Amino acid sequence: MTVQDDSNRGPRGARGEVRDRLLESAKSLFSTQDFQATTVREIAQHADCDPGLISYYFGSKIGLFREAMSLPADPIKVIFDAFEGGPGAGERIMLAVMNLWESSEATSNFRMFISTTVASQATFEVFVAWLNEALLTPLSKRVEGPDALLRTQLAFSQVMGTVVTRYVYGSDPMASEPKEKIAQVVGKHIDALLGTTPRGPEDR
Amino acid sequence: MTVQDDSNRGPRGARGEVRDRLLESAKSLFSTQDFQATTVREIAQHADCDPGLISYYFGSKIGLFREAMSLPADPIKVIFDAFEGGPGAGERIMLAVMNLWESSEATSNFRMFISTTVASQATFEVFVAWLNEALLTPLSKRVEGPDALLRTQLAFSQVMGTVVTRYVYGSDPMASEPKEKIAQVVGKHIDALLGTTPRGPEDR
Repeated sequence: MTVQDDSNRGPRGARGEVRDRLLESAKSLFSTQDFQATTVREIAQHADCDPGLISYYFGSKIGLFREAMSLPADPIKVIFDAFEGGPGAGERIMLAVMNLWESSEATSNFRMFISTTVASQATFEVFVAWLNEALLTPLSKRVEGPDALLRTQLAFSQVMGTVVTRYVYGSDPMASEPKEKIAQVVGKHIDALLGTTPRGPEDR
Repeated sequence: MTVQDDSNRGPRGARGEVRDRLLESAKSLFSTQDFQATTVREIAQHADCDPGLISYYFGSKIGLFREAMSLPADPIKVIFDAFEGGPGAGERIMLAVMNLWESSEATSNFRMFISTTVASQATFEVFVAWLNEALLTPLSKRVEGPDALLRTQLAFSQVMGTVVTRYVYGSDPMASEPKEKIAQVVGKHIDALLGTTPRGPEDR
C-alpha cells in the first residue's frame, strides 16, 4: 500500500484521490469480470490501497457499485438538462441516452449492469432503488398532470427498449440508422408521455 | 432408455411423443439452470430417450432451444392475430404480449432467454436471427409506408421496453397498474409506429 499524504482532507487532496482511484478500479474490474467474483480485496489491491477504505468511503461493495454506476458523465444530470431545455425534450433525452451509451464508459457500465443483475437479485434491487431514487422519482415531480410517475416510468421504458433494440439486439436498419432519426421518432412518444412539447418545424 | 413403440410414426404416435418429451425436458432444464451447462445427454436423460434423437429431431442443442422458445402458445401467431384484428392493433398486441409473459411458460422461456443471451453470444445471435425471420420481417411486410422494417423494430422495442420495465424492473406504479391501462397508453405509440388505427371511443 502506498503511503498517502493525509494532510489535505478535501476532495482534491489525497483522500479524494484514494476515493477516485477506488471508483476507477471498481469500474474497470466490474466491467471486465463478474461482479460476484470481484472481491473487495481485489478492488483495493487494484487501487493500491487498504481494503478497509472501501467500507469507509462507500459502506460496502454494493455502495461502491452504486457510485461507480453514476460516473463519470453523470447520466442523471444529462437527462435533467435534456428535459429542461424547452421544446424537443423527448428528442434530446433520446439522443443524450444514445450518446451516453456510445461513450465507452457507458458501455462498460451497462455490461456491468447486465452481468450483475443476472448474477444477483440483491444487486438488481440496489440498482432499481437507485434508479427510482436518483432519476425516475425526481423527474416525475417535474412532470405535470395525472399519473406522473407511471408516465415517467413508461417514458423510461421506451428509451430503454430503443437503446437495447439498437445496441444489444442490433439488427439493421435499427442499428445503422442515424441516431437523429431514431431520436426524432421515439422523441415524439416520450414527449407525449411526459407532456413536454415536441420540437416544431420552426425549431429545426 | 425406455423401449419406444415405433409402429405409429405420426405426430401423435410414439415418435411425436418422444419429440414432445424432449421439448418439455429442454424447457424445464433451460429455465431452471444455465443453458451452457445443460448437456444434450442431460436433456435426453430427463426425457428418458437416446441423446442421438436430439440431433435427429432438432439438429442441435441450439435447434432444440429455438423450438422450445416458440412453445406452447405460439407468440408469433398471437401477435399476427392481434395485428390483423382491425382498429386497436397496438393495444391488442401490448395486451397479448403481457398475457404471454404472465403465463408461467412465457416467464420460464424469458428467464431462459436472459440467462442464455448473457452466457453465450452464439445463442443470442440464434435468437436474434429467429426473431427477425419469424416475427419482425414478416410483420414489416404487412406494414404500409416507408421504413416499414425500421418502424416494426421500433414498435418491437416499445413493447419489449414496457414488458421489461413492468415485469423485470417491476417498480410501482408500473408493476401494479391494470394491464389494460398500460396497453392503452403504449398501444397508441405502437399504432403510430405501425400505421395501424387506434381503437376509437366508439369501440370501447
